[in-house]
Amino acid sequence: MGPSGAGMAGIAAPDAVAAVLAALSFDRDGLIAAVAQQHDTGEVLMLAWMNREAVKETLETGRICYWSRSRRSLWRKGETSGHVQHLVEMRVDCDGDAILLRVDQTGPACHTGAHSCFFRAARGDALVTLVS
Amino acid sequence: MGPSGAGMAGIAAPDAVAAVLAALSFDRDGLIAAVAQQHDTGEVLMLAWMNREAVKETLETGRICYWSRSRRSLWRKGETSGHVQHLVEMRVDCDGDAILLRVDQTGPACHTGAHSCFFRAARGDALVTLVS
Repeated sequence: MGPSGAGMAGIAAPDAVAAVLAALSFDRDGLIAAVAQQHDTGEVLMLAWMNREAVKETLETGRICYWSRSRRSLWRKGETSGHVQHLVEMRVDCDGDAILLRVDQTGPACHTGAHSCFFRAARGDALVTLVS
Repeated sequence: MGPSGAGMAGIAAPDAVAAVLAALSFDRDGLIAAVAQQHDTGEVLMLAWMNREAVKETLETGRICYWSRSRRSLWRKGETSGHVQHLVEMRVDCDGDAILLRVDQTGPACHTGAHSCFFRAARGDALVTLVS
């Protein structure tokens, strides 16, 4: 497990940035799926997308930066809402086509105000909204 | 949290299957990203893909079925390895373009034998392999 809550913990050395980028496979749009997980509770907060530049910026600054597919631009999480995600540790999967971001989330992760974007669950005979 | 380890817990009623499918947005290849998380420890195990049929089969059987992009066929997780994933709960994100599978994993999730596919982390100046 990474250091707990240390603000600078997520900032990677240049060699680590190069190693991570070399290990990743981006899709035909130049993107890779990234899962954000609260580092201490294990809660899965959201899934979003990164391009090479977003991965690099995230590692260099320690603040999560995604690629917004709808706006077609870098999306510095929390830039307007203040609900930033500090990087605790970036992990890469076995075949390099997914990223796990262990983060420290400020405020809710979801634009709806929910703590996690995954607030609906199939239960009984319906898709229900969970109260968190 | 869903029932712990109950074999039938993940099996959804027909109305729930319809509700989930109606809430999902599949990409231009007919796929949606699915994150598997061990339900009791919170460990993120893997990220894979589902099409409509995989979502339906998973909800109906309570066993995780993905879509293999390389083999272009349904991939019933653990079919050859025995390392099956039992569905505890399926969650859907705010905009319906990602799925969170809360599962009970038998054996390692990763084809390398690692418990989680996310066994590499950017640490110091390198991408290091974690021992789990």
